[in-house]
Amino acid sequence: MFEQEGWFTEVYPHHGSAFSLRVKEKLHEEQTPFQKIEIYDTEWFGKLMVIDGCTMVSERENFLYHEMMTHPVLYTHSSPETVWIIGGGDCGSLREVLRHREVKTAVQIEIDERVTRLAETYFPDLCESNRDPRAELLFIDGLRWVKESPPNSVDVIVVDSTDPVGPAEGLFNEAFYRDCLRCLRPGGILAQQSESPLFHLPLIESMHRVMRSAGFAHRQTLFFPQCIYPSGWWSGTIASASPLDRFREEDVRAKPFDTRYYNADIHRAALIAPEFFRKALQHS
Amino acid sequence: MFEQEGWFTEVYPHHGSAFSLRVKEKLHEEQTPFQKIEIYDTEWFGKLMVIDGCTMVSERENFLYHEMMTHPVLYTHSSPETVWIIGGGDCGSLREVLRHREVKTAVQIEIDERVTRLAETYFPDLCESNRDPRAELLFIDGLRWVKESPPNSVDVIVVDSTDPVGPAEGLFNEAFYRDCLRCLRPGGILAQQSESPLFHLPLIESMHRVMRSAGFAHRQTLFFPQCIYPSGWWSGTIASASPLDRFREEDVRAKPFDTRYYNADIHRAALIAPEFFRKALQHS
Repeated sequence: MFEQEGWFTEVYPHHGSAFSLRVKEKLHEEQTPFQKIEIYDTEWFGKLMVIDGCTMVSERENFLYHEMMTHPVLYTHSSPETVWIIGGGDCGSLREVLRHREVKTAVQIEIDERVTRLAETYFPDLCESNRDPRAELLFIDGLRWVKESPPNSVDVIVVDSTDPVGPAEGLFNEAFYRDCLRCLRPGGILAQQSESPLFHLPLIESMHRVMRSAGFAHRQTLFFPQCIYPSGWWSGTIASASPLDRFREEDVRAKPFDTRYYNADIHRAALIAPEFFRKALQHS
Repeated sequence: MFEQEGWFTEVYPHHGSAFSLRVKEKLHEEQTPFQKIEIYDTEWFGKLMVIDGCTMVSERENFLYHEMMTHPVLYTHSSPETVWIIGGGDCGSLREVLRHREVKTAVQIEIDERVTRLAETYFPDLCESNRDPRAELLFIDGLRWVKESPPNSVDVIVVDSTDPVGPAEGLFNEAFYRDCLRCLRPGGILAQQSESPLFHLPLIESMHRVMRSAGFAHRQTLFFPQCIYPSGWWSGTIASASPLDRFREEDVRAKPFDTRYYNADIHRAALIAPEFFRKALQHS
């Protein structure tokens, strides 16, 4: 056990390391039917949400993750009118998606309503678009949602999940990706958070293979820093049956909203793979 | 105090966080005239060197830092024949510099000989070029070295220092930068490790201002992941009196050595500033 008075620590047991945040106070703890959720007030990172012992979101740095999980995929799609967010219960991805005027409907499909209720209480900024008339919040199983939805229903699916263990495990397998592909309209794109390039390279390789096998012939992994996640370096992967060789760069340069990390040049830069990653995935 | 049996932890007191590595064994500890050096054998990161309580280098991930502190600046210079490394006692930057065939002389100026002697024992890979006939290892004060060197002596200066407190504090001030500029030949470039974009933005802003004031009219900050450093996200800054708008991209694409992180596209991508950084530095 790793116990340090006044700190919250997440241990990465397979990678011999741990990240700790200095805590002022534990604000909340509950066991839901799905997972254990804790909320802390930290010294430098603001409020922190922890699920099953893993840091999910802090006020200080969630902009990195939420911007990079949404704006690249939405600006790669030619006209994203309908968006689903699978998971994403903290509502931060929903907020970023709704900054796009082209989006007419954004449905957040979070299995655990308590994540969203606690985000509304402790992370009101992330939830500021929850009452947008284009937003719909469902508290059901995302796996079942994509399985039972009709074909050609959606332009973009953002899989904003926890790690591929526990409730989110099924969000990284071929059956799920096939269901996503069936639900996507022509030109549709899936975006999946895809873990750490340094810690989880075999998982990312496997994910690319499984996505390809499910029919996502075109895939791009984007790299970005994410201080409170394992290794501090994270990735998202976008995938489509259609080519992904362009994004709407002019639209990014003219975007009608502010961002803190993302811009057109960052989009282009985030697509560049380090040499070791390029070599590892050249046959995936 | 943060004490956890079986772990080495570095606490970042100003940023309410800490990073820990699981330790198999402490291999060495000594107090030199300059600093305390510890060597650990860790579970996943291989050997680890710690100086004054701060993680310096691990076998697992030092390639990120050493490649990004050397190849971008060397491929930006048109013809880097003479290179100084200020600090860099683990010899990893020296090794990367000597991969460049254009380099005729590389001088490592490390104040603390014990850093290098321990690197030779515990990080032999990093020291594999120490006997290269082009290499010269000096164990003297880098500040004094640049102060007393004649003008127009060197093409590239790499400041591979510890954080700007303690022995390395003087390596971030205007007098030092003026000395560097005087030592650089026309077209010469300085490269300085420049801390975390997330944790140390005010320091980076200040460094840009001080460099500009010292005569470095052109500066570029490069961003890269660095798991064991504060926030897991790091930067290096290159600076010159001459424009830095190009690097020898064709030469990078034809480079006669392997890298694990760096390549021509990564060079270009690393130069892209996140939106918050761009805004913070637009007047620096």
